[in-house]
Amino acid sequence: MASTSTAYKRSYGDRAKAQSNPAARALLETMERKKTNLCVSVDTVKPADFLAIIDAVGPYICLIKTHIDILEDFEWSIIERLEELAKKHDFLIFEDRKFADIGNTVAMQYAAGVYKIASWAHITNAHPVPGPSIVKGLSSIGFPLQRGLLLLAEMSTAGALTKGTYTEEAVQMARVHNDFVIGFIAQRRMNGIGAAPGEAQDEDFIILTPGVGLEAKGDAMGQQYRTPREVVLESGCDVIIVGRGVYGKDLSDIDGIRARAERYRGEGWSAYLERIAS
Amino acid sequence: MASTSTAYKRSYGDRAKAQSNPAARALLETMERKKTNLCVSVDTVKPADFLAIIDAVGPYICLIKTHIDILEDFEWSIIERLEELAKKHDFLIFEDRKFADIGNTVAMQYAAGVYKIASWAHITNAHPVPGPSIVKGLSSIGFPLQRGLLLLAEMSTAGALTKGTYTEEAVQMARVHNDFVIGFIAQRRMNGIGAAPGEAQDEDFIILTPGVGLEAKGDAMGQQYRTPREVVLESGCDVIIVGRGVYGKDLSDIDGIRARAERYRGEGWSAYLERIAS
Repeated sequence: MASTSTAYKRSYGDRAKAQSNPAARALLETMERKKTNLCVSVDTVKPADFLAIIDAVGPYICLIKTHIDILEDFEWSIIERLEELAKKHDFLIFEDRKFADIGNTVAMQYAAGVYKIASWAHITNAHPVPGPSIVKGLSSIGFPLQRGLLLLAEMSTAGALTKGTYTEEAVQMARVHNDFVIGFIAQRRMNGIGAAPGEAQDEDFIILTPGVGLEAKGDAMGQQYRTPREVVLESGCDVIIVGRGVYGKDLSDIDGIRARAERYRGEGWSAYLERIAS
Repeated sequence: MASTSTAYKRSYGDRAKAQSNPAARALLETMERKKTNLCVSVDTVKPADFLAIIDAVGPYICLIKTHIDILEDFEWSIIERLEELAKKHDFLIFEDRKFADIGNTVAMQYAAGVYKIASWAHITNAHPVPGPSIVKGLSSIGFPLQRGLLLLAEMSTAGALTKGTYTEEAVQMARVHNDFVIGFIAQRRMNGIGAAPGEAQDEDFIILTPGVGLEAKGDAMGQQYRTPREVVLESGCDVIIVGRGVYGKDLSDIDGIRARAERYRGEGWSAYLERIAS
């Protein structure tokens, strides 16, 4: 339970005001304005499916999560179209790149190459495993562009090594660079983790949580699922990330995709309202 | 010290014979045939520099390490040219992708997208942090193509979180999937790490070690350096990975690049000869 966390009980809109990072502020403001804590993850390989799904779920989300490097026949017009949809439907873009190299390398991967991630993704993420240099390297590119970074403090897969001091050191790393690190990919609130008693009481990291589903309990590749209520109310996370639970197996069933996005948005938001009223 | 490891004292050629994975066998055979344990890492953004450096260092290396996603103006002809150079100079290709996502996602990232890494990289690598699903996901694509995977058991950067049980669990994960996991990115031999007494005595994982330099002691982004002798003889690693130490600051100085590659090859091979004679 996260009831000792001040952020746990405050509204997204209220928390937005205290954020110094522009991407963090924009995300929380969008959540408040659109009444949604749903992020849809679109893991499809055909650009036409990718864009059609995003257009369908756009009204119900605060954030879209992409793996730009799985798209077939990538061309820059896909990015332009994605940015148009973000503007049309009022959501932010999170490239789930999971950077995991040394500072010098991630700076190049973030800024350059075919995808130029820093130029269009408001938010990206990184594993803390290489140590603080990864945050410095990414910040050297992203901070001047008003981007935000999430650190992967925990993973939802079976047998993940993100435990014990690993998670504590991830949070400590974020605390040192809290102008650029806006939150965590995690399974619970991270406030005060790895901090000395009394330290870090007012910190407010945004928690985004994958592995959210209403029905499925897991897949053959080790993914495990929890419900929006478990994630937002019981564990105190802020943004629920839903992939296949929204877009399903029939990518041409746009009405079904839209209906499932609306349903997840409702479940996530109810859990949040119950949380701040508790 | 790694003197208890049987692999430590055996020749690369002898070890090649016992490898079931085709990429592992080809790498060790190439090392023996060309008398080199040098892998050059080419972290340049311009394709012309990238290819010119590889052509220059080709005669001295067993393996080229790439970050394909930092190249500007990527087009498929760069891959074709890289494959021609690998054939011309008799080396293998290692895409240092540092996969770090769940099984379902890494399978798509490895097979698809612009880069189609599995189609050309004999070897790639992954962080064990998501748990065993990452190995299963990559193996589902790479094993049928006779590819090999390295797990990042340790990193050479300051403050890296690859320590204690993290490294032990990485090695245990490799042991379970040793048809596809051929070795580690690490700072020392990994034989028997995390194993019960008497278990895993004959295992032979190939150890590739970054952060090797003859002069520089580190950079501003947290990279730390050791010499080829420290790495190969004292720590028992098999392949030295050298980047800026070979290609330097003046990318047009091809003669200098060639000379430094030859020097590192000599230093690495001397340390290896001293090791197997010890």
